[in-house]
Amino acid sequence: MSVKSIRVCLSPALLPYYDFTDTVAVVIDIFRATSSMCYGLANGARAIIPVAEIDECLAYRDTGYLLAAERDGKVVDGFDFGNSPFSYTRDKVEGKTIVLTTTNGTRAIRHCQAADTVVIGSFLNISALTDWLLRQDRHVLLVCSGWKNQFSLEDTVFAGAMTLRLRGTGVPLDDAAIAAQSLYLEAREDLDAYMTRSSHSERMRYLNIGKDIAFCLRENVVNVVPVLQGDQLVSSEALQPVS
Amino acid sequence: MSVKSIRVCLSPALLPYYDFTDTVAVVIDIFRATSSMCYGLANGARAIIPVAEIDECLAYRDTGYLLAAERDGKVVDGFDFGNSPFSYTRDKVEGKTIVLTTTNGTRAIRHCQAADTVVIGSFLNISALTDWLLRQDRHVLLVCSGWKNQFSLEDTVFAGAMTLRLRGTGVPLDDAAIAAQSLYLEAREDLDAYMTRSSHSERMRYLNIGKDIAFCLRENVVNVVPVLQGDQLVSSEALQPVS
Repeated sequence: MSVKSIRVCLSPALLPYYDFTDTVAVVIDIFRATSSMCYGLANGARAIIPVAEIDECLAYRDTGYLLAAERDGKVVDGFDFGNSPFSYTRDKVEGKTIVLTTTNGTRAIRHCQAADTVVIGSFLNISALTDWLLRQDRHVLLVCSGWKNQFSLEDTVFAGAMTLRLRGTGVPLDDAAIAAQSLYLEAREDLDAYMTRSSHSERMRYLNIGKDIAFCLRENVVNVVPVLQGDQLVSSEALQPVS
Repeated sequence: MSVKSIRVCLSPALLPYYDFTDTVAVVIDIFRATSSMCYGLANGARAIIPVAEIDECLAYRDTGYLLAAERDGKVVDGFDFGNSPFSYTRDKVEGKTIVLTTTNGTRAIRHCQAADTVVIGSFLNISALTDWLLRQDRHVLLVCSGWKNQFSLEDTVFAGAMTLRLRGTGVPLDDAAIAAQSLYLEAREDLDAYMTRSSHSERMRYLNIGKDIAFCLRENVVNVVPVLQGDQLVSSEALQPVS
């Protein structure tokens, strides 16, 4: 079990420069969109519909779906909730479909639609994701959502954690994967302390959501791999034919 | 003597997302464009005109200027030379104006023109550049030329070396500057060995230009800081009024 190559795209704005042939794109927005997506699907949400803009989200009003919108780290006025993982607990999301727009993560997902397959990564599902990717025998492109198209430390460190787990003898890495892996090897001794250095984490501390940050850095809280099917993210298990 | 902040832009394609107010942009293309620019001006070239496209370069035919064009690591057919530093020795360039187009570096320069000031960085002029920047009291944006808009290890490691030299107490760093500095701290023990891991260095080894690579990693070979004045790069000394 192996992957064909590992590349890391450090910003959604760089996606046009990547070849998506035979590629699984893994979208990463650690603080907090992709962490919350993993948590929500693990807690029984039927599906999550990622949309790029607030207007697209509003178009789902009166459908019975939960509407979630975050901009600049805050819940957008008039919405049920934003992207805090604690809004995606079982009591809130079980059996529901959620329409979500965020500053970075949901836009990154939309820009990956040229890939054969788009899946969602976070520390919360890191082992499940690793196992799933190793069964694919395809190229892996780890897509960091960043912050307003700029580089973010936490997404890149996670890409490095994935690179370390996925790489095998002779698997080609691009320069960004080499760098991400170096950063993760430095960070992993004390991930919380390392992330404190990131500008986004500082932004979030200012928003008083330190509890969210600590939660988003926990490994293997869930077993799901969210997969994009049409315009919806569903759990990979939901994709498997019933035997 | 200090700078106001240090940011690192990891690809020219990300430049539209940066604020250039009160900013000096430092363009970096270690293998080999900006190394050769520093070397050429130190060796008495009158000026270097960076142009983005081969056609723009050809427009300077019959002006007496030296025309240099590189694509994919090779000299373009019909041109005097490409971007090997050994084409920029005193016997070849003294007193001449050079028009240069390269795959990555010259395009990055063109995309930085919104900055107050654009200067050129390489290991060859690292101390001169550091001293010059510390006298500016402005924001510094280190612009990695990368490879075809993707991240490159050698440019980022150099940005990290600059971050380490420029940072003082309380100088804000963005996430990319933090990451670049981490990579440099890992790489600096044995820069040659570290760079061997980069994909571009591998490309260049294939082109049999290992001698160029080794030269481009030498520190403080020259004392010049190339500064963009209009459409020409000139030595910063040439800008100073004669006393």
